[in-house]
Amino acid sequence: MSETDLVRALAAVLPPESLVTDADVLEAHRRDQAQWAPAGVPRVLVRPASTAEVQAALRVASALRVPVVPRGAGSGLSGGANAVDGCIVLSLARMNRVLEVDRRGMFAVVQPGALNAAVKAAAAEQGLWYAPDPASWEFSSIGGNLATNAGGLCCVKYGVTGDAVLGLEAVLADGSVVRTGGRTMKNSAGYGLTRLFVGSEGTLGVITEATLKLRPRPPKATTLVASFPTLVGAGVAVTEIMASVRPSLLELMDRATVRAVESFGSMGLDVDAAALLLARSDAGGGQGVEELARMAAACEAAGATFVAQSADEAEGELLMQARRLAYPALEKQGATLLDDVGVPLSRIADLLAAVEQIASERGVLIGTFGHAGDGNMHPTVVFDRNDAVALERARAAFDDILRAALALGGTITGEHGVGALKRPFLGEQLGHGGLRLHHAIKGALDPLGILNPGKVF
Amino acid sequence: MSETDLVRALAAVLPPESLVTDADVLEAHRRDQAQWAPAGVPRVLVRPASTAEVQAALRVASALRVPVVPRGAGSGLSGGANAVDGCIVLSLARMNRVLEVDRRGMFAVVQPGALNAAVKAAAAEQGLWYAPDPASWEFSSIGGNLATNAGGLCCVKYGVTGDAVLGLEAVLADGSVVRTGGRTMKNSAGYGLTRLFVGSEGTLGVITEATLKLRPRPPKATTLVASFPTLVGAGVAVTEIMASVRPSLLELMDRATVRAVESFGSMGLDVDAAALLLARSDAGGGQGVEELARMAAACEAAGATFVAQSADEAEGELLMQARRLAYPALEKQGATLLDDVGVPLSRIADLLAAVEQIASERGVLIGTFGHAGDGNMHPTVVFDRNDAVALERARAAFDDILRAALALGGTITGEHGVGALKRPFLGEQLGHGGLRLHHAIKGALDPLGILNPGKVF
Ligand SMILES: Cc1cc2nc3c(=O)[nH]c(=O)nc-3n(C[C@H](O)[C@H](O)[C@H](O)COP(=O)(O)OP(=O)(O)OC[C@H]3O[C@@H](n4cnc5c(N)ncnc54)[C@H](O)[C@@H]3O)c2cc1C
Ligand SMILES: Cc1cc2nc3c(=O)[nH]c(=O)nc-3n(C[C@H](O)[C@H](O)[C@H](O)COP(=O)(O)OP(=O)(O)OC[C@H]3O[C@@H](n4cnc5c(N)ncnc54)[C@H](O)[C@@H]3O)c2cc1C
Repeated sequence: MSETDLVRALAAVLPPESLVTDADVLEAHRRDQAQWAPAGVPRVLVRPASTAEVQAALRVASALRVPVVPRGAGSGLSGGANAVDGCIVLSLARMNRVLEVDRRGMFAVVQPGALNAAVKAAAAEQGLWYAPDPASWEFSSIGGNLATNAGGLCCVKYGVTGDAVLGLEAVLADGSVVRTGGRTMKNSAGYGLTRLFVGSEGTLGVITEATLKLRPRPPKATTLVASFPTLVGAGVAVTEIMASVRPSLLELMDRATVRAVESFGSMGLDVDAAALLLARSDAGGGQGVEELARMAAACEAAGATFVAQSADEAEGELLMQARRLAYPALEKQGATLLDDVGVPLSRIADLLAAVEQIASERGVLIGTFGHAGDGNMHPTVVFDRNDAVALERARAAFDDILRAALALGGTITGEHGVGALKRPFLGEQLGHGGLRLHHAIKGALDPLGILNPGKVF
Repeated sequence: MSETDLVRALAAVLPPESLVTDADVLEAHRRDQAQWAPAGVPRVLVRPASTAEVQAALRVASALRVPVVPRGAGSGLSGGANAVDGCIVLSLARMNRVLEVDRRGMFAVVQPGALNAAVKAAAAEQGLWYAPDPASWEFSSIGGNLATNAGGLCCVKYGVTGDAVLGLEAVLADGSVVRTGGRTMKNSAGYGLTRLFVGSEGTLGVITEATLKLRPRPPKATTLVASFPTLVGAGVAVTEIMASVRPSLLELMDRATVRAVESFGSMGLDVDAAALLLARSDAGGGQGVEELARMAAACEAAGATFVAQSADEAEGELLMQARRLAYPALEKQGATLLDDVGVPLSRIADLLAAVEQIASERGVLIGTFGHAGDGNMHPTVVFDRNDAVALERARAAFDDILRAALALGGTITGEHGVGALKRPFLGEQLGHGGLRLHHAIKGALDPLGILNPGKVF
């Protein structure tokens, strides 16, 4: 089949504005934000305006056996939305409407291309809150958030994207539509198919609509910062905090990260600390005060050299700003390979120690920060972009970190997904039985293997 | 194949204490607590002591194509654990150990036969809390809780059983073992297979181990009770409460239920109210007080004729006791058909009205109570056990309730599962596409269809 056949077949079933072959536009849709993941060259970009158009495109793709790569906002960090040669890139960007916000039912129905920020805003208009908050919330889509099961800062208390979804509409590889879940808070009817599409990174179906759970807005948060002379101390503090309260945020930055942030914009952080913890409580009122006091006590007991609390919003915001700068600040120091591993809560200190060891063995700079309260860390390898040897060393360190997480009973990805980047490692994590089961399910839902091939496993 | 062949084949791979053919014992393992669901006659009971024995039994079952019905504690309310003719009943009751409680990692690793109560107790020993609390917590197993995705009273704030599971070990129909998830709080590696086994009611695999998420113990709860002259008022109060706070419990009892409870043991409840709401906050301290005040205000604004708060534990416990008596009290009035439907939060009053309508049309008594904060209600049809016509009417009312829930955009089961009881209705809820997908997944995991056939769909 020639390229023209494919375009002709798509043109026969789609309106012209939904079909793009312009080379520059295609080039702009080749990759996500994972700079080092492989990316192929797409044949055509389909930008459907409706579920029916998604169906039409998938029917053509099935008939002609052309791979389809679903794409949200392209902010992914694992190459999940990267093109494969000759594929259709299926961008959901035009399907970006918030269809319904039901205040009394506490849910929103949205199209996949809606940005997380748009959903938050629509919920806020009704006095409600859409909780999931990946750092990319202003520019990532709900479809992408769902397909990667995105996390964020508040999920230590409020859960990840998958915890906020009640139901989905998805188009399968053969063009058929399925609806999962519904609009009820609880549902025990049939299999948990909503959660099967969540985190499947575009390999099982194209999400065309989502019913999302909304919450009441929590009270204003109070903030705590603590610095630790040792990584072990910080790890112990995290464990003790999690065993006694449920913070609305619990983030960690190691020394390399703190120094990068400090040199990016001087914020008065303790650059000699081995690690800095940032915690929040949004329990409100007296309970908020008590939670903060308990967290402060846990930090002190774990050897913190400095602990400060603040109920002042501006001050809290400043500290949050420091955390948000972690990655941009590290990026300023060179090219980066951003990792995303998870370990059991009890192994955080071990992970941090292992990362330090890897940095010294491989002779690279690694700044580690992340969602300590979930055991989900982002060790970020920083290297000289123009030095091929440095890139090799950085890649080796990146892989070492994945293996270190697995050795600690952890996962190769806590929130960014496997994508193209970590595919070689999934088998190590899942084992033979797990991988076989993945293939069985993939075979059942996408027997021709046209949906995002070469990703995940 | 004769019955003897099956028993011989099992005896060749299992120790004698794991194999039971005694007719009385088999009879005791034929059914769960769903009195009106069909049940067949099993050939043999297998009581494995290990995952290896589960594998051995399933290999024999596969080879001989004998159906296998997994069974936990048999407390189910949908006939899910009911035998089918000639089956192996696979009871997980002997695999009941709590293998590990990791206080610092905030998880427990348990065998499926462990009772929910045993897991709660083991967690409490470490100062932690296993949240899911089906009313059957003292006598239902974790395996059954997982396989039905059991709910309970606290899930309005803390989620259902599926929200508390980090990973599983399961044996597939062919005897192979898979592990899903892990010990980390977050995990984006591969498909959400943990959630696929959760709620699958023994039709996709036998759960042989679970890693459960533990939490810090919440502060002591304060309690509120409110009575409403109309069902609509109670429904509005629920909606307004859920839109502004997150109660740790929000339960409703209608007039028929309140009267049954009152005549069971006089508790001074308002027997003239159309509905009674029971709410709790465990936010603690000042925030708890504020949450209770907001809930009280919502009740008053919705027309409650009586609202009372109590921080006194004994008083709160008494009110909880009234709620716990709801079902036993209704059972005292006759034979019962306990339903379990869910609707969007905004449709609770509509559901209650529909149920009243059904009761009057079918000429039956229906007492409705349940987890209002989740929109998950248990309309319970009460009838004379010895009157065949009454049973027919009760059954018709039961089915009407399912259809009413579906008509309101709801679900035929919020927490008890589909089992054998509601199987004819699943297609109505899922539609053709959804049902087809269920078959595809079932076919991929259990191609011979030996696992709990005739259940769910
Ligand atoms: C600065 C920065 C900060 C970030 N912070 C976080 C963070 O805190 N937490 C976090 O989890 N991630 C974070 N990310 C990663 C990224 O933003 C998330 O993975 C996000 O969910 C991707 O959404 P997207 O719309 O950009 O998806 P894309 O990158 O376009 O796609 C991601 C994956 O989803 C699939 N997909 C997209 N839409 C659909 C659909 N409708 N149906 C089926 N499959 C689909 C794609 O095929 C691909 O596999 C960050 C990224 C950046 C650049
Ligand atoms: C008085 C009373 C109150 C109740 N209250 C509630 C409530 O508040 N909330 C609620 O959700 N339910 C409630 N239930 C229903 C019941 O207790 C739950 O469904 C419970 O989860 C069943 O657990 P079990 O161990 O008894 O499972 P069983 O009844 O033995 O089995 C239930 C289902 O799970 C499957 N199964 C069991 N173990 C496994 C395993 N290891 N692997 C695979 N499949 C398995 C069975 O095949 C069957 O389909 C109540 C029941 C009673 C009698």
